[in-house]
Amino acid sequence: MPSTALLTDQYELTMVSAALRDGTADRPCVFEVFGRRLPNQRRYGVVAGTGRLVDAIRDFRFEPDDIAFLRDRGVVDDLTAEWLAAYRFTGDIEGYAEGELYFPGSPILTVVAPFAVGVVLETLALSVLNHDCAIATAAARMVTAARGRPIIEMGSRRTHERSAVAAARAAYLAGFASTSNVEAGRRYDIPTAGTAAHAFTLLHDSEAEAFASQIATSGKDTTLLVDTYDITQGIRTAIEVAGPELGAIRIDSGDLSVMAVQARDLLDSLGARDTRIVVSGDLDEHSIASLAAAPVDAYGAGTAVVTGAGAPTAQLVYKLVEVDGRAVVKRSENKRTVGGRKYAVRRHKPTGTATEEVVGSQCRPPEEPHDRPLQRPYLVGGEPAADLPDLPASRRHLAGCLVSIPWDGLKLSAGDPAIPVTMLSPTS
Amino acid sequence: MPSTALLTDQYELTMVSAALRDGTADRPCVFEVFGRRLPNQRRYGVVAGTGRLVDAIRDFRFEPDDIAFLRDRGVVDDLTAEWLAAYRFTGDIEGYAEGELYFPGSPILTVVAPFAVGVVLETLALSVLNHDCAIATAAARMVTAARGRPIIEMGSRRTHERSAVAAARAAYLAGFASTSNVEAGRRYDIPTAGTAAHAFTLLHDSEAEAFASQIATSGKDTTLLVDTYDITQGIRTAIEVAGPELGAIRIDSGDLSVMAVQARDLLDSLGARDTRIVVSGDLDEHSIASLAAAPVDAYGAGTAVVTGAGAPTAQLVYKLVEVDGRAVVKRSENKRTVGGRKYAVRRHKPTGTATEEVVGSQCRPPEEPHDRPLQRPYLVGGEPAADLPDLPASRRHLAGCLVSIPWDGLKLSAGDPAIPVTMLSPTS
Repeated sequence: MPSTALLTDQYELTMVSAALRDGTADRPCVFEVFGRRLPNQRRYGVVAGTGRLVDAIRDFRFEPDDIAFLRDRGVVDDLTAEWLAAYRFTGDIEGYAEGELYFPGSPILTVVAPFAVGVVLETLALSVLNHDCAIATAAARMVTAARGRPIIEMGSRRTHERSAVAAARAAYLAGFASTSNVEAGRRYDIPTAGTAAHAFTLLHDSEAEAFASQIATSGKDTTLLVDTYDITQGIRTAIEVAGPELGAIRIDSGDLSVMAVQARDLLDSLGARDTRIVVSGDLDEHSIASLAAAPVDAYGAGTAVVTGAGAPTAQLVYKLVEVDGRAVVKRSENKRTVGGRKYAVRRHKPTGTATEEVVGSQCRPPEEPHDRPLQRPYLVGGEPAADLPDLPASRRHLAGCLVSIPWDGLKLSAGDPAIPVTMLSPTS
Repeated sequence: MPSTALLTDQYELTMVSAALRDGTADRPCVFEVFGRRLPNQRRYGVVAGTGRLVDAIRDFRFEPDDIAFLRDRGVVDDLTAEWLAAYRFTGDIEGYAEGELYFPGSPILTVVAPFAVGVVLETLALSVLNHDCAIATAAARMVTAARGRPIIEMGSRRTHERSAVAAARAAYLAGFASTSNVEAGRRYDIPTAGTAAHAFTLLHDSEAEAFASQIATSGKDTTLLVDTYDITQGIRTAIEVAGPELGAIRIDSGDLSVMAVQARDLLDSLGARDTRIVVSGDLDEHSIASLAAAPVDAYGAGTAVVTGAGAPTAQLVYKLVEVDGRAVVKRSENKRTVGGRKYAVRRHKPTGTATEEVVGSQCRPPEEPHDRPLQRPYLVGGEPAADLPDLPASRRHLAGCLVSIPWDGLKLSAGDPAIPVTMLSPTS
């Protein structure tokens, strides 16, 4: 993999330069990633991207070319160039599991390292987490809205070509069934899906020829896209060509709730009772919810999921909270940020329903029955921790978390966080 | 560079499979990229990303590992695997110059190739253009709002780590002065900027020590961030430490219009009349416009620019418009798409003001004085065309285009496209 070390804001490197000169570079520090609020008054956020970040930190090396560029630009001096050349992340990172829920103030990621070692990860950590958490949160809301029906992620074309791969991963983590993105399928072992576009029908001299060709190659269990010309005729042609064993039809335009009912009736009347109906076309969590009563078997979601459905970034920040064991905090109006390293647990009723998140600053919350600690090691002395969960495990973890929050927390409407976050400090 | 060939939706490969088997794979085709509308009723779009796309197509090769994965998954058969292994894009691509304006229906990119050769580029082309056009359009609106004051792009942390690099490029194309993203600086030779975060002040035992350290390393022309504690005291300390030769202060919080006036007064009273004021903190085109009367010297923009300021994707589509010289088009309500290869010119008054865009389907618009043809070759027989403009040239091109549209076109409010697009067909 190419180095990730230049995916960095210049000021991190100028700060390292100055800190190396003035002797503060080695001060023991704690940095934390958290969100001050949930975008669009959502009721929860989904942690995603930490697994990618661990890999990206492993690839965070300043190569000779990188350093030559920084020297040429005058960003760093000789002393700093030497330090960068030797750079390996040697600190500790702990944080919430992928698939965990988070709320305003949740300490999603904690980086414990000397100042210079930790500060250079700021941009990379935030880029990965702000993107992946935004997508996973939007995707989880769609999964809730789909009420068990599978959703195919097909938004690659509506986002940057590399974001698309990470977005497919985040959507799968959140419960999507599959992705259209082939690279995501390979890199993260996610099921892939996709059969044909309108272009394939237009290429052929008739819709029937296009359908026959697709079936000859992919078999009758394929999905035929029936809305290139007239949907009713398209469905008739599909069944004429494939027979009632046809796997599925896809409708990508029109009023999907109306079209789905008509398509189901028509398919049934043609004896194709097991042929599934897949709908796509600018679906978001709200339009998916509104299709709950329609005879739809699966959804294809694109633009909305890869752009975070109105919240394309999770707005997480990376803040220095402790220097030499001393809590530090920026003073500014309207930002009630608490300094100090945080320790977080989630409290639950005996039934398993979550009631609150308790976050202690420089102190561990007093233990109560049914508490669940929320932080786990990711890197220890720069080395990946043992037993990092894989993507399917994280996916199951999120499904369990969503069952545990109060019912109101699953509402799609704007509102308060599903559970409150209580901040404790040693003096409180 | 890693191959870009798997940054693709699976259905492109299944279509290639079927088309190779049924003999349609070699049919001469024309695909076009265009937008049906401008997001959020903006008045223009900015073409960006085509330069990146040319590079990505050069790296579009199916490597043995890629093909093995596709075979294992059952996505392609042996015949297709062989075809993919030999794949090189051998067609022609022409399109609008980077930095050109576009409107609903503008044929931004035209791909002329046999079906299979052209269809596999769909996702990659759309990913690159949908992302970069969205960012460049948002950025251009901010540049207009800034009225000549420089804007620093500092949004890397709020978007995917690789998108961040492309976003910095698109923002620079649109007229931003610099970026915080070091990789963008290296890869695209964009000026970089950045001095220190609040963490640097918090690291030190006092604000004065932090400022002194930064000045010792970066010189007095640096920018000191003065709002970690109390802004007024921060400015006093900055000038005490640096003297009135201090390059700039940065304010990242509070009511920026009020703070800028107070900061200017204070700086002037301290004799620091040439010390500039940089403001940042969730600035978008509207907040930048509202600061026009404030004594601000430069803006830092982050979240809004990298997320497209409310329109994170340009909503461009990639459509098959011609097969074997015959215009083709999907029939569906509310999508007045015209088939056939398009030829586009922009009409102007003798004064140079643009009046309309004329797009001929399978015909060239009749020539008029002051017409400017809008399409230029990018790839000819798969090889990059001569004289592709570099990024600074594209940046100047956009600046010229923005001068040429009617005044109303520069309004930030929602409205009609700045100029109408007239579609001509051979029969009209």
